[in-house]
Amino acid sequence: MRGAGFHHGKVRKPHWAVRASEMSKKTFNPIRTIVDSMKVEANPKKPMISLSIGDPTVFGNLPTADEVTQAMKDALESGNYNGYAPSVGYQSCREAVAAYYSCPEAPLETQDVILASGCSQAIEMALAVLANPGQNILVPRPGFSLYKTLALSLGIEVKFYNLLPEKSWEIDLKQLESLVDEKTACLIVNNPSNTCGSVFSKGHLQKILAVASRQCIPILADEIYGDMVFSECKYEPIATLSTNVPILSCSGLAKRWLVPGWRMGWILVHDRRDIFGNEIRDGLVRLSQRILGPCAVVQGALRHILHRTPSEFYHNTLSFLKSNADLCYTALAAVPGLQPVRPAGAMYLMVGIDMEHFPEFENDVEFTEHLISEQSVFCLPATVSGPSYFSCICPEGELKEAAVRINVCKGCGEAMV
Amino acid sequence: MRGAGFHHGKVRKPHWAVRASEMSKKTFNPIRTIVDSMKVEANPKKPMISLSIGDPTVFGNLPTADEVTQAMKDALESGNYNGYAPSVGYQSCREAVAAYYSCPEAPLETQDVILASGCSQAIEMALAVLANPGQNILVPRPGFSLYKTLALSLGIEVKFYNLLPEKSWEIDLKQLESLVDEKTACLIVNNPSNTCGSVFSKGHLQKILAVASRQCIPILADEIYGDMVFSECKYEPIATLSTNVPILSCSGLAKRWLVPGWRMGWILVHDRRDIFGNEIRDGLVRLSQRILGPCAVVQGALRHILHRTPSEFYHNTLSFLKSNADLCYTALAAVPGLQPVRPAGAMYLMVGIDMEHFPEFENDVEFTEHLISEQSVFCLPATVSGPSYFSCICPEGELKEAAVRINVCKGCGEAMV
Repeated sequence: MRGAGFHHGKVRKPHWAVRASEMSKKTFNPIRTIVDSMKVEANPKKPMISLSIGDPTVFGNLPTADEVTQAMKDALESGNYNGYAPSVGYQSCREAVAAYYSCPEAPLETQDVILASGCSQAIEMALAVLANPGQNILVPRPGFSLYKTLALSLGIEVKFYNLLPEKSWEIDLKQLESLVDEKTACLIVNNPSNTCGSVFSKGHLQKILAVASRQCIPILADEIYGDMVFSECKYEPIATLSTNVPILSCSGLAKRWLVPGWRMGWILVHDRRDIFGNEIRDGLVRLSQRILGPCAVVQGALRHILHRTPSEFYHNTLSFLKSNADLCYTALAAVPGLQPVRPAGAMYLMVGIDMEHFPEFENDVEFTEHLISEQSVFCLPATVSGPSYFSCICPEGELKEAAVRINVCKGCGEAMV
Repeated sequence: MRGAGFHHGKVRKPHWAVRASEMSKKTFNPIRTIVDSMKVEANPKKPMISLSIGDPTVFGNLPTADEVTQAMKDALESGNYNGYAPSVGYQSCREAVAAYYSCPEAPLETQDVILASGCSQAIEMALAVLANPGQNILVPRPGFSLYKTLALSLGIEVKFYNLLPEKSWEIDLKQLESLVDEKTACLIVNNPSNTCGSVFSKGHLQKILAVASRQCIPILADEIYGDMVFSECKYEPIATLSTNVPILSCSGLAKRWLVPGWRMGWILVHDRRDIFGNEIRDGLVRLSQRILGPCAVVQGALRHILHRTPSEFYHNTLSFLKSNADLCYTALAAVPGLQPVRPAGAMYLMVGIDMEHFPEFENDVEFTEHLISEQSVFCLPATVSGPSYFSCICPEGELKEAAVRINVCKGCGEAMV
């Protein structure tokens, strides 16, 4: 009771009682919680193969383009990007991003772009401007864990809508719509999908927009994997299909340019019916003043990164990812009881587990625990409460070995801890 | 009333009603508010001289050290810093920062360092972990506006303690202590001071610590201008003088290395009596997971930046700042009615206005408005409610001209709008 003596006339000695805030306690990464609760050790006789790493740069086989590095070098050497940028980013960078994404169906101007410290901060600001504590947001399951981390941190409730594996992870639209209530502040649409590797068709996106339009819910589109789709399908930015639903589209350099550590993200404000109006834009500008945006050197390089990266670079990245996805799919499809879902983009693949084939395991968590303890293969269980799936991201070299081990693991079960 | 039809059986059509969140509305930059409310135009006949720019890089006369740029180039070319770093920063970087600041009076280990996206995010996380909405923090006046911006954004109340110009901006310790109540979550101590250019003596810091110790209030030390003091005085990190008060010291590369745009900051956790314990550390780790830390390339350069920057660089920066401060002090002291306070460090100088000498102006806001409209000299009024002061930061070239204009302005008043 600090200072009580001053204000209430009581003589009570202050004592130390420093507690972490409620906000910090509400902030947590569900993946960490799952992983920490798994409490299994890898098999010391086998080198670890991690199929759960969402960072494309870790294995050194996906370097960024030389032009990207060169753009950074030029920005650095110019000496022009050491000072503070405006908190929403340099005007010229916002203009470059607007021009890059603008199209007749979804035109963008400079003031429609807010730069952020990575796509994470873009999503954080978009959530923070759209929702108040006590409101709820609609979030895909299975999906990227950060949405929940950020929402709970801000006191916003999370309602999960289901993605349907049998329909290539399309949204269960009826169930989605049934979740909407008077406290629903926004719908998060992640396309292409982190953890599912799915890409929504134009028709499905239009149905999603119809729900949002009928229920008058703005969309937060996480499009960080935009354009990262395999040749047989097409990526449609959701804003290009909307005539009335206001959309905050979040993206950045992380995945397509393979530099997640550079922390360069952005929000594109799509609001053709003036539903967001100035209020949401002003709110984003205000929120950006809290930590003052991304590294200015990366900003200085941004225009050249967007314009000079050769198309072969994007093509080569996708060929690599596609080839790995195919390898992964084929190898895992050959394991009785496993049903990989063929991905259409991004860097992930989900694998269904027919639990009847694995009577010794209760659920996907036990299955993946066993993979670690017996085979030193690390995958993430998709969800404890939903269907039994695990997710895969894989380096070329170790992929075949991992599939062999997963197959062996299925067969024996003897080394289970 | 979205979705009301679903849940209450009422047939009520949803309508669009997207509002910016309370948090975004509570987030604002007081400087912007002051500047926007001033509503005066510069004199079109005179080129603008801005004495309110806190970015040392704007005028091009304070480049960073070649070694700093080289360290960034090396990190970039290595290709090792494109991927995600841990959200609290690379272990090796945290170790480098810990080693750089550790000393026998205030030892630091790797886990005592949390990297952040600039000192702004360091302060944001430190505030967010220490205070809950509804609690209050003690903040210097006059002082850096970001403390209030961040606190209000988080729903934390701000109580201002006074700095005393007649005592070289030391804290009014009695008034400070009188502000403490049972809801006081932390005391912000900014030394060297942003806006005052003052540097606290060892004795004064010990008295501040005595208040914190008596009242059991942790300290958030904003030490971003640490070591940036002129030769006649000495900078003492407050943690080196504390035996029991737990301290979160925030700093970064921005000012001393002259790269504020690079957004590299850190929190040093000083907790020799284990009052913060694991709880505050864990809280900081959790909060860091929201946006995943600073740019990895800058992290990759950090060790070399700390170790290879030559001492002449720091020396030259300080000589430049000192010479400008002296020039500014002398020029303004010669204007009747103005009382500049000689700064001892950082990049700022505060100028008292004896309002009796300026009967045509109500207060410091009117005075600075007049400087703009008549003389195109832009200074910031220190505070509307406190003593009449304005702050100065000045480029070498334009400084003398600014002083001449301020002097002229004083004399006439005829061009007042």
